[in-house]
Amino acid sequence: VYEYAARQQRTDIQLQTLPGISAFQAAAARLGAPIGHDFCCLSLSDLMTPWTTIEKRITAAAVGDFVTSLYNPRSQKRNWQLSRLREIFLAHRAPTTPVAIVRQVTRPEETIHLTTLAELDVTLVDMFCLVLIGNSQTYRFGEFLVTPRGYLARKPATGAEIQDESFRQIWAELQRTDLSAADQWAVVRCIHSTADFEYEQLYYAQNQPLEYWHDYLLGGGTVITDVTMVQAGITRAYREQHGVEVLCYLNDARVADLAEREGLTRSQAGMRLALAEHPTALFVVGNAPTALFELAEQVQAGRCQPAGIIAAPVGFVNVVEAKLKTKSLRGLPLVIIEGRKGGSSVAASIVNAAFTLQQAL
Amino acid sequence: VYEYAARQQRTDIQLQTLPGISAFQAAAARLGAPIGHDFCCLSLSDLMTPWTTIEKRITAAAVGDFVTSLYNPRSQKRNWQLSRLREIFLAHRAPTTPVAIVRQVTRPEETIHLTTLAELDVTLVDMFCLVLIGNSQTYRFGEFLVTPRGYLARKPATGAEIQDESFRQIWAELQRTDLSAADQWAVVRCIHSTADFEYEQLYYAQNQPLEYWHDYLLGGGTVITDVTMVQAGITRAYREQHGVEVLCYLNDARVADLAEREGLTRSQAGMRLALAEHPTALFVVGNAPTALFELAEQVQAGRCQPAGIIAAPVGFVNVVEAKLKTKSLRGLPLVIIEGRKGGSSVAASIVNAAFTLQQAL
Repeated sequence: VYEYAARQQRTDIQLQTLPGISAFQAAAARLGAPIGHDFCCLSLSDLMTPWTTIEKRITAAAVGDFVTSLYNPRSQKRNWQLSRLREIFLAHRAPTTPVAIVRQVTRPEETIHLTTLAELDVTLVDMFCLVLIGNSQTYRFGEFLVTPRGYLARKPATGAEIQDESFRQIWAELQRTDLSAADQWAVVRCIHSTADFEYEQLYYAQNQPLEYWHDYLLGGGTVITDVTMVQAGITRAYREQHGVEVLCYLNDARVADLAEREGLTRSQAGMRLALAEHPTALFVVGNAPTALFELAEQVQAGRCQPAGIIAAPVGFVNVVEAKLKTKSLRGLPLVIIEGRKGGSSVAASIVNAAFTLQQAL
Repeated sequence: VYEYAARQQRTDIQLQTLPGISAFQAAAARLGAPIGHDFCCLSLSDLMTPWTTIEKRITAAAVGDFVTSLYNPRSQKRNWQLSRLREIFLAHRAPTTPVAIVRQVTRPEETIHLTTLAELDVTLVDMFCLVLIGNSQTYRFGEFLVTPRGYLARKPATGAEIQDESFRQIWAELQRTDLSAADQWAVVRCIHSTADFEYEQLYYAQNQPLEYWHDYLLGGGTVITDVTMVQAGITRAYREQHGVEVLCYLNDARVADLAEREGLTRSQAGMRLALAEHPTALFVVGNAPTALFELAEQVQAGRCQPAGIIAAPVGFVNVVEAKLKTKSLRGLPLVIIEGRKGGSSVAASIVNAAFTLQQAL
């Protein structure tokens, strides 16, 4: 009526709209509480609306996990649309999703039929029906449908819950099939510390490093880091629980002297001192390519036998070269973050993954 | 000959090859030391080789910055190829790149003509000529061409050189034009600590934060971090030089009590304590979204007036929400790393950028 009046520019006609109860509300009331959360209404009539538009909306409703009420679900002539909708929904929703067919709602001949998306028999539906599809949380309770308001699945709140939920999200997105569970766990922790999924592709491991380091650390082994930030990133509780000493030589009083005397960078001098005093430690490099070069050089020359190397320096100069040199070492447990990426958080993550390996298995 | 013999399967023919001096070597010797580094030889004859193959190689030689010796550079009939090569080279090399035309090399009628890529007159070239194009480092010295072996432009070796060269590479790749030089500098430091160029797009700033924090820190202001790793990432030398105290309450003895009593995460409790004791500090969050929520909540309620907030927690639960809440705060200097990315290294980088702002301007 409004549309017609507008088209005629008839401002002299008095128009008034009274609010009413729509069929979806009447049906929802009969069903209990199916519309307890976000929902949408969708007409399947393609008389005035192109089917491409309708299908776009069906997909949006399915993906958006809306409780969906269907108007004009099916008529004698319009008999394929509901089947197509069911197909689209099944691509995004569980087959067990509850569905209600409410016929002649509030009239004496009213009937209610409860079923599921998988078992929905479209031939039961005609123009007197309203079809209501639940969301992923809707459940059947006797003859009722209930959609909880989401409070049951509350957001993680404690530190441990947040971490667990984060790990779950990352695991779900992993792609590689060539990594062991232990290596996947290290990848999960790298991504957890960066929100950068590229780390899965950059991860390289040799000689079951995580398994080896798990035993090494739980046996109270020593860890050497190139910078204090990596040291700070290794979880204190793990260190204390297993009596693991994490040392960084960078600020050692002797380092500045050695660096100047031998023409080394400070990181390199720190690494050289550390290697002399702890030749069998686990070495973790999250920052300085020169430290990694020094380490690889000494291992290659057979002057030390570390419990392993975590090679994750980040940067733009000599970083790729230092990692490639490290990759050529044989016989020791090794994790390398290939390319330019890496950093203190990533390096520390891998140590933390080794401490907590039981979570992966 | 070998090819012919092979085709006939004539294994009974005795074949021997004697090494000789090729025209490019003879020409190079006459020119001094043009082939002191990587080089290639390229024939421009498309009699047996499709031109597309030749052009692919010309492009590779130009892009690869090879010293390039041309055989069959030009004949009466084959007269456009050299011009096309010049065009391709000029797209990748400087117009001043030295070029030599050596005609009838080692014969009595030998002539040498030195020119540049821009000034190369192709009509001077015929089938008796060898054309030699220098690389980007080749220079003319009297009547000689010299290509240094690269030792002059040695790789950065000291810590400071490596850092400067890294910064230079990152600056060169920046894309955004809407950031101030100070904000760009913060972006450079974020990318420097991650090798992740996405940080340029994720960076958001409000109220000239870097400029404000530069004065604040050089005046000996206090910094609060959510985790010890951010604390460790703020360069010690800067802190000591300017008497800046960087505090982290996470391991404070009172935090565990407060967290349990009030049902808070430890990070949140640490932030609450820090806010009570240092309500005007610069707050730096690199890890815990709950710490950032607490901070934003208290600022919104007007219970504290920090010198600013660096909001760069990383993760998968509540991280985006905490950043959006922080973004709605008005009136204080603010940097936010939007989305899920961030981390201790990134948070600390921004503080380090504020300390060293003079490098940006």
